[in-house]
Amino acid sequence: MVNAHALDTLIQSLRRLPGVGVRSAQRMAFHLLQHDREGAQVLARSLQEAVARVRHCTQCHTFTEDELCTTCRDPRRDASKLCVVETPADQAALERTAAFNGRYFVLMGRLSPLDGVGPRDIGVARLIERASDGVVQEVILATNFTAEGEATAHVIGQALKSRGLNVTRLARGVPAGSELEYVDLGTIAHALVDRR
Amino acid sequence: MVNAHALDTLIQSLRRLPGVGVRSAQRMAFHLLQHDREGAQVLARSLQEAVARVRHCTQCHTFTEDELCTTCRDPRRDASKLCVVETPADQAALERTAAFNGRYFVLMGRLSPLDGVGPRDIGVARLIERASDGVVQEVILATNFTAEGEATAHVIGQALKSRGLNVTRLARGVPAGSELEYVDLGTIAHALVDRR
Repeated sequence: MVNAHALDTLIQSLRRLPGVGVRSAQRMAFHLLQHDREGAQVLARSLQEAVARVRHCTQCHTFTEDELCTTCRDPRRDASKLCVVETPADQAALERTAAFNGRYFVLMGRLSPLDGVGPRDIGVARLIERASDGVVQEVILATNFTAEGEATAHVIGQALKSRGLNVTRLARGVPAGSELEYVDLGTIAHALVDRR
Repeated sequence: MVNAHALDTLIQSLRRLPGVGVRSAQRMAFHLLQHDREGAQVLARSLQEAVARVRHCTQCHTFTEDELCTTCRDPRRDASKLCVVETPADQAALERTAAFNGRYFVLMGRLSPLDGVGPRDIGVARLIERASDGVVQEVILATNFTAEGEATAHVIGQALKSRGLNVTRLARGVPAGSELEYVDLGTIAHALVDRR
């Protein structure tokens, strides 16, 4: 498209980022080369550092630079509760609430048969092994309330229950601060069924 | 936010890309580390290559890896016509029409006083020097038809005309294939005034 081979290669490489089409990639490449060459170099170094250093926690499978992540190493966390989330971002959202003091298991994904993501890819066997350590008393399923998140919770829940483990799911209901008039019907129905 | 310092650094670096907020940056970093580590390394190398190799054509100021870009080196291009565009992407759009066989001058930006972009930043002096080489007979202003693009065309046009150069502007009018009912009033008014 343009006169410089290295620029075309950069645009192609930027397209490997999720959600970046050819126009965004062009805009990013032009911006970096025209206005922020230092940013381009910083980004290049960060990518190489992250690929070299970041690996998975052997216990909860989240990203970490060590054998165990800081949450798994923290002796003040309640080891009898294990919360299952899809991504580190979901874990971070739960941590921000300061309402949970147990341990986590991060699936690093969700079941998605159409995309070829099966139980093996999200480490269901490893989760069962982790939850069967004799210390975990309750597994809290905190996958998203999307179709894929619900399916994931169902499959994992069945597998854990069949091994005699105590499994719970995050409550569904009306979000704090919302007016019923504007809440979708499915949510209101769930809130009615799960009333307390 | 997360357990790995290198991951946080990567997320911060990705935010330097235009249009990328903290959530997009997280999603990009997770995707690369979880599903496409090779892509991360390819991107890192492309960034370094592009920063090292890509520079500006000494004649038209577009991106190139050589002293002169391929368009400026091409002896079959009509040197008497000089088309002024904002970006290499705009130049590429004009080239795709195959309707122009002259040379280009790429401003690599547009006048934008609010963002601190003045005539010096888009090389107006260099453009005047380029257009005064004695060979250029017509300067075609092909900046965008936005407020900033129009202002840029106005300023450049005045400067070039005051030096006795022949300046034209891309025609405004109704886009091909469109129905008048759905075309905005300003466009229709211009098409009326410029009728032929």
